[in-house]
Amino acid sequence: MDNFTYCTPTKYIFGSDAELQAGTQLAALGINNVLVCYGGGSVVRSGLLERVETSLAQSGITFVELGGIQPNPTDPKVREGIDLCRRTAIQGILAVGGGSVIDTAKAIAAGVPYDGDFWDFWAGKATVTEALPVGVVLTIPAAGSEGSGNSVITLLDGMHKISLRTDFALRPKFALMNPELTFTLPPEQTAAGIADMMAHIFERYFTTTPDVEVTDRISEGLLMAIIDQAAKVMAAPTDYQARANIMWSGTLAHNGICGTGRREDWVSHFMEHEISAVYGVTHGSGLAVIQPAWMTFMAHHAPQRGAQLARRVFAVDEPDDTLAALQGIACLKAFYRSIGLPVTFAQLGIDHPDIPLLVAKLHENKGPEIGGYYRLTPADTAEIYRLAL
Amino acid sequence: MDNFTYCTPTKYIFGSDAELQAGTQLAALGINNVLVCYGGGSVVRSGLLERVETSLAQSGITFVELGGIQPNPTDPKVREGIDLCRRTAIQGILAVGGGSVIDTAKAIAAGVPYDGDFWDFWAGKATVTEALPVGVVLTIPAAGSEGSGNSVITLLDGMHKISLRTDFALRPKFALMNPELTFTLPPEQTAAGIADMMAHIFERYFTTTPDVEVTDRISEGLLMAIIDQAAKVMAAPTDYQARANIMWSGTLAHNGICGTGRREDWVSHFMEHEISAVYGVTHGSGLAVIQPAWMTFMAHHAPQRGAQLARRVFAVDEPDDTLAALQGIACLKAFYRSIGLPVTFAQLGIDHPDIPLLVAKLHENKGPEIGGYYRLTPADTAEIYRLAL
Repeated sequence: MDNFTYCTPTKYIFGSDAELQAGTQLAALGINNVLVCYGGGSVVRSGLLERVETSLAQSGITFVELGGIQPNPTDPKVREGIDLCRRTAIQGILAVGGGSVIDTAKAIAAGVPYDGDFWDFWAGKATVTEALPVGVVLTIPAAGSEGSGNSVITLLDGMHKISLRTDFALRPKFALMNPELTFTLPPEQTAAGIADMMAHIFERYFTTTPDVEVTDRISEGLLMAIIDQAAKVMAAPTDYQARANIMWSGTLAHNGICGTGRREDWVSHFMEHEISAVYGVTHGSGLAVIQPAWMTFMAHHAPQRGAQLARRVFAVDEPDDTLAALQGIACLKAFYRSIGLPVTFAQLGIDHPDIPLLVAKLHENKGPEIGGYYRLTPADTAEIYRLAL
Repeated sequence: MDNFTYCTPTKYIFGSDAELQAGTQLAALGINNVLVCYGGGSVVRSGLLERVETSLAQSGITFVELGGIQPNPTDPKVREGIDLCRRTAIQGILAVGGGSVIDTAKAIAAGVPYDGDFWDFWAGKATVTEALPVGVVLTIPAAGSEGSGNSVITLLDGMHKISLRTDFALRPKFALMNPELTFTLPPEQTAAGIADMMAHIFERYFTTTPDVEVTDRISEGLLMAIIDQAAKVMAAPTDYQARANIMWSGTLAHNGICGTGRREDWVSHFMEHEISAVYGVTHGSGLAVIQPAWMTFMAHHAPQRGAQLARRVFAVDEPDDTLAALQGIACLKAFYRSIGLPVTFAQLGIDHPDIPLLVAKLHENKGPEIGGYYRLTPADTAEIYRLAL
């Protein structure tokens, strides 16, 4: 186990009607004027935005809206938000949505008090030390951004999709989590969210740090719970209990508890970011395609962790590590297919991916060799992309 | 899954030399004058206290010492600490030790700014809304107090041992966790700590709340990790990795993550508190005796949770719930015995426990019927005490 510092100060308020606490929670933080961020029209049509804004009004909080945030959010919306906040003396940001909305809210929160261009943080030129407080009303369990200090933004100029990780500065102050808000998610979005949260666990699970039994067992337990509850939620989208289990899993998958004491490896995410930047696919669906391919490569080069995953989560009974890992990957792909996810580029709607372009952009963004669990050259990452064909 | 609010703001700094950050962490909280609480002479003899106090001095922090805190801590020491803090304008408290030291530090922290008698909080007559900030240098992984908002204090007048639970007010601001500090723990203390942390999971696991798969799986995973690492730590007390896994498990067992979304049942703790209040036994050893007895009663009255525990943690393969639960309890007792713990009153050194006295005090403190998982009358709790003979 490696040394670590772990702190998750986000207050999670979980259950029916949680969103109605938006006003009181912001007021408790001393915020009187808030930017309300949201995405498409569903939060408007469902009446959620109105309920939240009524809650703000009841606490005497004024607000300005920033709607229209798109999936795979980009820098222009962030700049628009920063400008809006500065012009209207905004004190805090309330994100009503999923990962894209929350990540945009965080980027705005970091940018407002910063003297330079907000992209400096994502480009690694500056560190976030100060940010407006962010609160969340979660509508999509997937990205785990409601409990993390991370934010993924794409710079349109060059389509650079970059994940910024901060320890504390960008962790939301509170997350209001009502599973009922996810009843109306389309099946493909529910499934993509499930792949996303599982990926967040896998990226922490494939580690070279030995002796992390506690973190292993928590991660394996979460994966088993997700797989069990996913079947229920796909079969009955308004099953409150299954939705609740999936929603809470999404937070725990990414708030750091699955990473304590070990090195992580986010190459599958990096590889998917290039796919979604170029082809505009849903992040979770892209992960369902690329992560089993990455694991397949590892089964042949560093099979130990995949073998343990297979044996503990998928009950694979096979003494050989490579064979066990491969059987586990087969189980994982079968699970993904069972909830309607793609597991190949073709199923993702990309018949002829431009692998040289993906590889070039990947290594341009991340360096000539990437990966903590196993170092990958451009030849290796090209092979992984091909394994997803 | 029930609605819940969950927030664990404690900053965990984990690894070698973590204790050397005492000064910088307190300084970061703006604390210039601190009360250093500790127990017996081991922290002095080992040089730990000196290292910690050097760290304070290097950060320009002055301090006053309060040593001699005993296991099963009592109110006179708390009153002494409150008085000392008030006389010396203490701004924060640093607990260097295990659960007894930390719980005393929390009680002092609550008492200093309070106008009345600190016991009001434990007696349920007042709620802690304000407290001095508490930091921890952990030396015994067991009570989980380093990450919880709880504090167990015994009122000498009547030997009332009461656990106070707060949401946030008494959660430590930081916990410095160096597994090396636990290398020299005597085997019986290591084992008692393991029983204590397992008990903290069990008390949350035996619930009437359905559909808590995520929390179940995390709890089961932690238990499996503890059982696996316990054997290693007992065999090789200076095995850093096993010590690290056990230490981190102790925190996660009690910082609330195993309780999210469900009702808990702390009757085994309540029953043990009476044993240790009357007979002065080590809390964890008392739990190793009483908790399997409580589970045995439940196997005959409400076997479902014990059966799931047996099947998932102890790999019991038995379709009947009562039989499965009983087999699981046999595995648990075998595990406790394997690490040198008592599983009967006699093994605990109490040949003829005064069960009527224990039952009378239990129900006097906790009410005529107790228990959330299954309601227990005095006749029931007497039977459970007898099951531990």
